[in-house]
Amino acid sequence: MTTHQPLAVGLIGAGRMGSFHAETLARRLPGVRLAAVADPAPGAANQLADRLADQLGRPTAYTEIGELLADPRIEAVVIATPARTHAELVVAAARAGKAVYCEKPMAVTLADADRAIAAARDAGVPLQVGFNRRYDTGFRAAHDKIGAGDIGTPQLLRSLTRDPRLDDPSRIPPWTIFLETLIHDFDALRFLNPGAEPVEVFAWADALVRPDFKDRGLLDTAVVTIRFDNGALATAEANFQAVYGYDVRGEVFGSAGMLTMGDIRRTHLTSYGPDGAAADCVTYDQDLFHDAYVAELADFADSVRTGRTPFATGEDARAALSIALAAVRSVTTGVPVGIAELKGE
Amino acid sequence: MTTHQPLAVGLIGAGRMGSFHAETLARRLPGVRLAAVADPAPGAANQLADRLADQLGRPTAYTEIGELLADPRIEAVVIATPARTHAELVVAAARAGKAVYCEKPMAVTLADADRAIAAARDAGVPLQVGFNRRYDTGFRAAHDKIGAGDIGTPQLLRSLTRDPRLDDPSRIPPWTIFLETLIHDFDALRFLNPGAEPVEVFAWADALVRPDFKDRGLLDTAVVTIRFDNGALATAEANFQAVYGYDVRGEVFGSAGMLTMGDIRRTHLTSYGPDGAAADCVTYDQDLFHDAYVAELADFADSVRTGRTPFATGEDARAALSIALAAVRSVTTGVPVGIAELKGE
Amino acid sequence: MTTHQPLAVGLIGAGRMGSFHAETLARRLPGVRLAAVADPAPGAANQLADRLADQLGRPTAYTEIGELLADPRIEAVVIATPARTHAELVVAAARAGKAVYCEKPMAVTLADADRAIAAARDAGVPLQVGFNRRYDTGFRAAHDKIGAGDIGTPQLLRSLTRDPRLDDPSRIPPWTIFLETLIHDFDALRFLNPGAEPVEVFAWADALVRPDFKDRGLLDTAVVTIRFDNGALATAEANFQAVYGYDVRGEVFGSAGMLTMGDIRRTHLTSYGPDGAAADCVTYDQDLFHDAYVAELADFADSVRTGRTPFATGEDARAALSIALAAVRSVTTGVPVGIAELKGE
Amino acid sequence: MTTHQPLAVGLIGAGRMGSFHAETLARRLPGVRLAAVADPAPGAANQLADRLADQLGRPTAYTEIGELLADPRIEAVVIATPARTHAELVVAAARAGKAVYCEKPMAVTLADADRAIAAARDAGVPLQVGFNRRYDTGFRAAHDKIGAGDIGTPQLLRSLTRDPRLDDPSRIPPWTIFLETLIHDFDALRFLNPGAEPVEVFAWADALVRPDFKDRGLLDTAVVTIRFDNGALATAEANFQAVYGYDVRGEVFGSAGMLTMGDIRRTHLTSYGPDGAAADCVTYDQDLFHDAYVAELADFADSVRTGRTPFATGEDARAALSIALAAVRSVTTGVPVGIAELKGE
Repeated sequence: MTTHQPLAVGLIGAGRMGSFHAETLARRLPGVRLAAVADPAPGAANQLADRLADQLGRPTAYTEIGELLADPRIEAVVIATPARTHAELVVAAARAGKAVYCEKPMAVTLADADRAIAAARDAGVPLQVGFNRRYDTGFRAAHDKIGAGDIGTPQLLRSLTRDPRLDDPSRIPPWTIFLETLIHDFDALRFLNPGAEPVEVFAWADALVRPDFKDRGLLDTAVVTIRFDNGALATAEANFQAVYGYDVRGEVFGSAGMLTMGDIRRTHLTSYGPDGAAADCVTYDQDLFHDAYVAELADFADSVRTGRTPFATGEDARAALSIALAAVRSVTTGVPVGIAELKGE
Repeated sequence: MTTHQPLAVGLIGAGRMGSFHAETLARRLPGVRLAAVADPAPGAANQLADRLADQLGRPTAYTEIGELLADPRIEAVVIATPARTHAELVVAAARAGKAVYCEKPMAVTLADADRAIAAARDAGVPLQVGFNRRYDTGFRAAHDKIGAGDIGTPQLLRSLTRDPRLDDPSRIPPWTIFLETLIHDFDALRFLNPGAEPVEVFAWADALVRPDFKDRGLLDTAVVTIRFDNGALATAEANFQAVYGYDVRGEVFGSAGMLTMGDIRRTHLTSYGPDGAAADCVTYDQDLFHDAYVAELADFADSVRTGRTPFATGEDARAALSIALAAVRSVTTGVPVGIAELKGE
Repeated sequence: MTTHQPLAVGLIGAGRMGSFHAETLARRLPGVRLAAVADPAPGAANQLADRLADQLGRPTAYTEIGELLADPRIEAVVIATPARTHAELVVAAARAGKAVYCEKPMAVTLADADRAIAAARDAGVPLQVGFNRRYDTGFRAAHDKIGAGDIGTPQLLRSLTRDPRLDDPSRIPPWTIFLETLIHDFDALRFLNPGAEPVEVFAWADALVRPDFKDRGLLDTAVVTIRFDNGALATAEANFQAVYGYDVRGEVFGSAGMLTMGDIRRTHLTSYGPDGAAADCVTYDQDLFHDAYVAELADFADSVRTGRTPFATGEDARAALSIALAAVRSVTTGVPVGIAELKGE
Repeated sequence: MTTHQPLAVGLIGAGRMGSFHAETLARRLPGVRLAAVADPAPGAANQLADRLADQLGRPTAYTEIGELLADPRIEAVVIATPARTHAELVVAAARAGKAVYCEKPMAVTLADADRAIAAARDAGVPLQVGFNRRYDTGFRAAHDKIGAGDIGTPQLLRSLTRDPRLDDPSRIPPWTIFLETLIHDFDALRFLNPGAEPVEVFAWADALVRPDFKDRGLLDTAVVTIRFDNGALATAEANFQAVYGYDVRGEVFGSAGMLTMGDIRRTHLTSYGPDGAAADCVTYDQDLFHDAYVAELADFADSVRTGRTPFATGEDARAALSIALAAVRSVTTGVPVGIAELKGE
């Protein structure tokens, strides 16, 4: 019989991603309880708390994040606020003694990343980052096979992200394509080249989807090449508007074989008609990685309970950020950028 | 805000399938509560109840099914006992005023099927049957497309089930391949040929996996052909030991196109090596239809709450049973059997 | 250095299939020369001979088939006339001492099949039949793997043929679906179940594409089930109008694995757009089996030169015909038909 | 009736690729005659001529290429010698008044490319280059769809080549990976981005397959990124040892959709066993592009006869070479290289 109390989690950020995590925390994870929601936007936390109220009660709603962090019932927090607030919240949560799950990117400067990592270490709390591809069964199986040597030494890698639709370019901060989108691919490439670290980065980016927003700094299409210290050469590419759906794929070619990952089919149904064969594609990332989103929060709850290191750490977040920052600098300077050059950033 | 109380469900049968449903009822369905478990096997209900105890409490465990049916807190039951007990339990549950979800097959004679349907109708309770393929996204999308006329009139259909492993042939009752395995395919073929009904059935079956059990009546391989009243010709096939995994597929060919369903890949990972390309296959039915198992119980809860007809009814169960019984008779007689001939069975 | 003279082949029948074979004989087979063409239709042979004339000369054109058979330069003939003339031409060609390649079906009665086989045997000439799937790389690789025991003992087999378009139903003789279309599948099933022979056949057929032609005996949709002497159960299905293209597939499930064959994609191009993923399908059988058509005539030339048995024999043609005739009788009688019952047919 | 004489073609170079083209010229192209073969290696031309002798005679064998070029019967030549001899031979053949088909790369310096193009123009002879992917049905269909606007404006492109086996690294000249392997991909990317031209190139390359040969200048793994003047960003990658087979794929992502090309399956057979699903892969480039190799020589013969421009021109060869040379310089300098900077090369 399960005797321990459910883990009391506080969610910070009641937007799109926060609401999705809230559903998972409230309904899909045995042994976890969504105890509170905080969002500074008027009414946001209340509305989400109302929606998730059930026989177990209703999460407490805060408009002051500090109040949630001060709530002694809360053992762990899930941070799903805008990217630029993450690092500061990680530090505050860690100092409040809460275990921390933070959406990616954990930070947008290396100094902030270091501060976040140090705060968690000093407080002795777990720090996990939302690199959900690590929890996808296909990417995870690839990681395991590569780690087991099934394809020998990785030599060529590829990871790509194409979002289905660029709705409102005016709301997208500059460098988002590197700091928020490709950050997934940078982490995936490290995940799929286990033990190796990036050495040098070259990147091109452009506003091809919305050229009219280029002068405001919006870049919607990018290709990044990365050289790793085991010699492997990797490419990452992203685009903000794939009309056919949400497209995430990976490929690792090694001395003894190749692995490909990614599936953009919505179901296993294929239709044949006068125009040939056809299949529907996945449109939303929450469809594609639904199980992975649940698995990462389950991993969080488990690592909080058991004290073990989670599967996507603050150090992983910092390493992926290094690649992103090198890519930003490469786009700015037009030449390759060594990861080592970033030290003071 | 959700104000209604959670639906209190009692599970009857704590075996492999019952335990799986118990997990779903206890943990994956918001608005549903697993209130009790009954199983006559000593300790079985208690053990399952212990395993599922959580902050919401522990389901009551009964060894007398009648006590569960008499428990006034229970609003709905899920029947997951051996097939030959289903019809009687449906009748008893309906008479006790409980909404009824019954695993397939709902009955193994037409008379019992009629009694079960009548009992639910007389009691005014919903009666749903566990045809989980109706809740699989691929099969469901196919059904919808066919209903919308996307492939014109169905002319040729195929459905197959191959189980991964025949562990203990001595525990399998005669005719299981028709009454418990192919019953899924018979329902799927009706589901994929909406509005049409079977007219005539021809079947062959043999003991090819375990010929040593043939004289005890075990048939482990079967092919059934079915003629529908809209002219469509269908085949259903089953085998009890597919060494590569759990294989469920469907195909509907019509005057304006074709649909294929089914995917036996475990993940979206493909491996390439000196021997070519390779992919892992699904081994267990609960892997393949995991989401469908959750969806069918969600549909049950919803139809209980709203009073609407569930998506897989007692009448559907009876119709699939008719095909199964015709197949049994065809194997016995060696000639095709009209569905209409079964009337007195 | 190749010193032997090219094999002088005479083509009988200058229709669609004959013209296609003529191209192959004239242009794609080293060591083969299309020496003559015969067709009783006025102008047909002349027109084809003109089209194929080149630096090597022009094939002689005959309107009397007997003259081609009497032409002493001709060493081998390819028979591509209407089905019902095949057996008689095989006999005549064999008696004239020519090696014989005959399009399927070699005969439409068992007595004719026996006469054709006997004539070739008595004349000591090779007799090959146009079962082109035996020469397709995928079907052939499957045959080899099954023969090598890779999937254990075959238990369930499937073969299907769907033609892309039913242009002029009035020109199609009764029972064509069995004698000319499914004959390919009947042979394929024997080819994929090597060493086993059919025992019993059950068939349904209907006019679903053109119900208005049903009273003239046209059947355009059929499902046949076949029981083999090694216990394997097989299904064959055909339809005369697949709007998506020419569809030929096979599947063999055995005690140790499964093989699937068939590819209806025209190229390896996949298109992704707002409606999902799409691929073009093959429309004509000569596209799908182009290489197989060349390979079977190469096999013919080689077996003529070397005296070895070709890969698709008169006996194979007779065995496939037996299944077709049993299917015809099963449709007529409504019950399964034993192959042994056909003896006097 | 075809009245024109067959086109008399002379083959220069009797090595692996030359022998393959010789088979095509001698046996697979109606209206073409392999009239002569020249190779300076003792016996090579004679041996190939012997092998291809048939009823039409035996090609003349020359050890002096000049003699073949002086042979007045020869109307057209196919150049399949080592890469560094190509440009000079194109010039000589053009001056001798022969139509010229030249294997890729047509030249290894821009000056040589210019001389070859000028020689053909001055002589008024057709000049075609062996970019066989342009003749592959999948790549060609993609080109046509992109040209028709089916996927909008190309934004991201990918092309890759992985050879199956690096047999003797000591025989591979430096920069081969760019000048002889990736030259295919550079042309493919231009072909798939019709109307656009490359602006800037960045490349990394390394000796990962055979690090022991790195100090001799062998690079066996490379990633190249290319920026086009329509904004599109492309990647090309190559590796000399893919243990699973010969791997050539392409992908074009545009504002209105995506196309993927490439298929490394050898047949349409899929095997399922205890380890999952498996398929054989293609091992040799001549298997993968067999039909394309025939099609490109057919295009050559046709463009010679009709005077029209072939589908892969000297200018295409020069443009692909520009990218290769920019990649070489980028690897040498470590920074991106503008195509315009190459002018004096």
